[in-house]
Amino acid sequence: MPEGNMPQTLTPLVRPVQVRADVPSLEDNTADLDRLRNAIQGQLPDGGGLEIPFCRVVPLSRLFRQAGFAGVALINELPGRWVLADFLPALPLTLPAMALDLGTTHLEAALVDLLTGKVMASAGRENSQIQYGADILSRIHQATSVRRQMREVEPSFMDPGLLTLQQSIVACINELTAELAVAGGIESGAIRALSVSGNTAMVHFLLGLDPFHICREPYIPMANMIEPMESRELGLKLHPAAPVWIMPSVGSYFGGDLISGILASKLAESEQVRMLIDVGTNAEVVLGNKDWLIACAGAAGPALEGGVARMGMRAAPGAIESVAIDPVTYSIEVQTIEGAPARGLCGSGLIDLVAALYLAGMVDIRGKFRDPDREHDPARAAFMRERFVMRGEQPAFKVVAASDAGAVHDVLLEQIDLDAMIRSKAAMYAILSTLMSQVGLNFTDLAEICVAGAFGNHIKPRAAITLGMLPDLDLSVYRAIGNSSLQGAQAVLLARSARQECLDIVSKITYIELNVSQEFMIQFSGSHFIPHTDCSLFPSVPLLAE
Amino acid sequence: MPEGNMPQTLTPLVRPVQVRADVPSLEDNTADLDRLRNAIQGQLPDGGGLEIPFCRVVPLSRLFRQAGFAGVALINELPGRWVLADFLPALPLTLPAMALDLGTTHLEAALVDLLTGKVMASAGRENSQIQYGADILSRIHQATSVRRQMREVEPSFMDPGLLTLQQSIVACINELTAELAVAGGIESGAIRALSVSGNTAMVHFLLGLDPFHICREPYIPMANMIEPMESRELGLKLHPAAPVWIMPSVGSYFGGDLISGILASKLAESEQVRMLIDVGTNAEVVLGNKDWLIACAGAAGPALEGGVARMGMRAAPGAIESVAIDPVTYSIEVQTIEGAPARGLCGSGLIDLVAALYLAGMVDIRGKFRDPDREHDPARAAFMRERFVMRGEQPAFKVVAASDAGAVHDVLLEQIDLDAMIRSKAAMYAILSTLMSQVGLNFTDLAEICVAGAFGNHIKPRAAITLGMLPDLDLSVYRAIGNSSLQGAQAVLLARSARQECLDIVSKITYIELNVSQEFMIQFSGSHFIPHTDCSLFPSVPLLAE
Repeated sequence: MPEGNMPQTLTPLVRPVQVRADVPSLEDNTADLDRLRNAIQGQLPDGGGLEIPFCRVVPLSRLFRQAGFAGVALINELPGRWVLADFLPALPLTLPAMALDLGTTHLEAALVDLLTGKVMASAGRENSQIQYGADILSRIHQATSVRRQMREVEPSFMDPGLLTLQQSIVACINELTAELAVAGGIESGAIRALSVSGNTAMVHFLLGLDPFHICREPYIPMANMIEPMESRELGLKLHPAAPVWIMPSVGSYFGGDLISGILASKLAESEQVRMLIDVGTNAEVVLGNKDWLIACAGAAGPALEGGVARMGMRAAPGAIESVAIDPVTYSIEVQTIEGAPARGLCGSGLIDLVAALYLAGMVDIRGKFRDPDREHDPARAAFMRERFVMRGEQPAFKVVAASDAGAVHDVLLEQIDLDAMIRSKAAMYAILSTLMSQVGLNFTDLAEICVAGAFGNHIKPRAAITLGMLPDLDLSVYRAIGNSSLQGAQAVLLARSARQECLDIVSKITYIELNVSQEFMIQFSGSHFIPHTDCSLFPSVPLLAE
Repeated sequence: MPEGNMPQTLTPLVRPVQVRADVPSLEDNTADLDRLRNAIQGQLPDGGGLEIPFCRVVPLSRLFRQAGFAGVALINELPGRWVLADFLPALPLTLPAMALDLGTTHLEAALVDLLTGKVMASAGRENSQIQYGADILSRIHQATSVRRQMREVEPSFMDPGLLTLQQSIVACINELTAELAVAGGIESGAIRALSVSGNTAMVHFLLGLDPFHICREPYIPMANMIEPMESRELGLKLHPAAPVWIMPSVGSYFGGDLISGILASKLAESEQVRMLIDVGTNAEVVLGNKDWLIACAGAAGPALEGGVARMGMRAAPGAIESVAIDPVTYSIEVQTIEGAPARGLCGSGLIDLVAALYLAGMVDIRGKFRDPDREHDPARAAFMRERFVMRGEQPAFKVVAASDAGAVHDVLLEQIDLDAMIRSKAAMYAILSTLMSQVGLNFTDLAEICVAGAFGNHIKPRAAITLGMLPDLDLSVYRAIGNSSLQGAQAVLLARSARQECLDIVSKITYIELNVSQEFMIQFSGSHFIPHTDCSLFPSVPLLAE
């Protein structure tokens, strides 16, 4: 494929540069390496110096000579630096690179051709670190088990627990890489770059950075901004000289995955004020436009994620994603992802279910199941008696019975899950309100609210508004943007402007620490009711009589 | 020692930067590494970006935190790049660095304090590669013994012979480093930088570069200009992050040792035209001023170096460095270096001896021993009979007899050594003449002739002029500058301007390949007589009747 086929707009992380040098002679006795350097240097956009790492002097000088002093140099374009990565006799058909969304529970990856920008393959798998701890905090505990003195005696000391976590995630990425390579019809070693978008702790685990202070006040990561290293330094099975671009993070609770989200949502390029909401382990929220960005994060996610609610699960086949209860007959209809037999509730299904139960008068404004014995409507009372079962001293709602067609087992919503869900939705609304108040704006000033991730793809904003989780705005304001963490990782592989922008975003963003915000605590208390203590904030939500 | 003690003019290869950062708080939750980077960045002269190699992220972040976020960062100042090397709680008393003259037969090193520029210790030792070959060509042969195809199958392949040579020189440098450290009262690991000044082949052996094409037309090195690597990459026992600055070379026969010589002689800063002569394995000559530089090299050295002439040796204790023969009594007086018992002849002693024999009428203008039987002066005939012995069918001159006071054994000058010496002196004069003629100047246009190395320290220009080896100029034109290879290596450790200048010199220099010069061959033939076929070139040298 001639170089002319490369879209003009692509400025990939690894750039092929065609070189053709004169053959050495007595009149031109330039050394091989210097000849190669000179041939490349003139073609670098800013005339910057080319770095040739010592370990590549011998093999690349030889490959250049063997190719007759002409061919294609591959250059890793790092911030302010050009590093020679390889020399090939000719331009290959594709120049594959890998974008990785390094999630706490799940990894998603895409194989991208740096010559065309096209996605060649996609794959995903569970984060293998789950076996060492479902959540980040327990993994940090695992990674910092050895007493602190060891770190002070030997600055390079790596905690054995951290080593285990690192080896686990490296192996997991290597398996994912192999799968991706097969799907893309290439060798893993042909992958020339990797970009990684993950939360701050996951990045620490991957790079073997000490996460000790991440979860201890004042919550300081070891590093937010890490220069790209080469894949060989991490034991990743790509091309050994592949640069690994780690999305920078802003703080312990504001990771590179959200920087990716800002890139993908184009928040930082917007004239109007927009908001980005990403619900994963935490709810992470960014507000801003091209001039300013403000962000915060809080524990609004856990109840909505698989693994916390008893019947909770990832948004995967078999997860109930939608629930409808007929207001007259009280018949219930559930939809599962891909129509697979019902196995549990994903976050969006949980929200849909609780909103439906609230609108059907079976959950009160405090988020408690109502007592069927105090129910006046006989149809509702009958439905409730049929569906409510006791779990210990608490009632639970049977969403799906094992005996139902297409069910794997009973799917129950317990009061304890409902309570957790109320805390999450209260936290979410409190986060959003606090953030708006910080900049003196109202929700109605927002041109758009981008909702990222699987949560964004599946949630019904209407249901979230009913619960008072999201502000009561016209539904057209809400836009699901999909896996923006992965999209951002793809963007930095392909465009210098994206790589520059993610560094700019970090320096531009103001991060609000909610743990020390009085306002957040007040907002949080007021948001524990459905939809809110101040119902005027949710004019579209019907007020139900007690 | 406070930083204020560092001379203002020092811009060392490793620069200490004092940093003091705020302690992390909820209001300032910058990550440890980012805090360190920010604290350093503002103090870099050109506001350039600081590189933090991945392998140092964990230990340096920890050391910074342990030191209370204040201390001294050590920065490797590479061309166009600043690389973080270490973090110390306080400025040490000294910041030692090592300058190394990597000679074919001998290594010389100096330990320099980067804080003050003072020399802390010096040491030298024989090049351990001599066991694999006395001269460069035999070592290149040894280093390229495996058939060429292997290199083409695996570009990183290292010839086992080259590996042996590399391991040998690395071990030799490590021993020298240990000796230097003891002499300087420090640990080897405290040495923070190394500069290496050596010929092109020696640099190839040290770095494991393939020297195959160095000695094959058109004589192409694998690399002339190598970016600094870190000592750990070469297995050198200094601080692992110590940058290794390799003096760039100009061609296969014009190495970094001569670039050092140009630096040390300040040739490239001179208004007037000056010449630099360095006689080692080859005679290397540079001519020029601040506007232009022209250079060439040729095999004028071997006869003057230890190991070639049967009685030849390095300029070391016991080497005869000076010979006087009384023109009337023919009594002979020799001086040895440090007055030690005579063991052999160093290059300057050889020149002094042959000049004395010529002036005493015992060597003719063709460089042949005269026949005592055809001698008319009885005193001279008697002296010659006493001193001349036959070696096979050729006469030899006994400089020192084993029976003499303070002699170790007979020291003989054989006709074969004399012939080699004549070829060397002819080559030297031909090189100098060819170079002058290239730029259309006469020897009388030279403001100065710097003679480098042990040769320069010991040679008597008068004797060299007598033989027609050096041009017949006023003796004040000649200046011995000592080990300029080592001096240049010291200069780049201490001054950014010297590091920049050595890169500038390489791009400025014009190298003349004598192997293809007709003029050189003509000059070479004419220079085989003492002093020359054209005696008008040497008006100060007495013409002796046959």
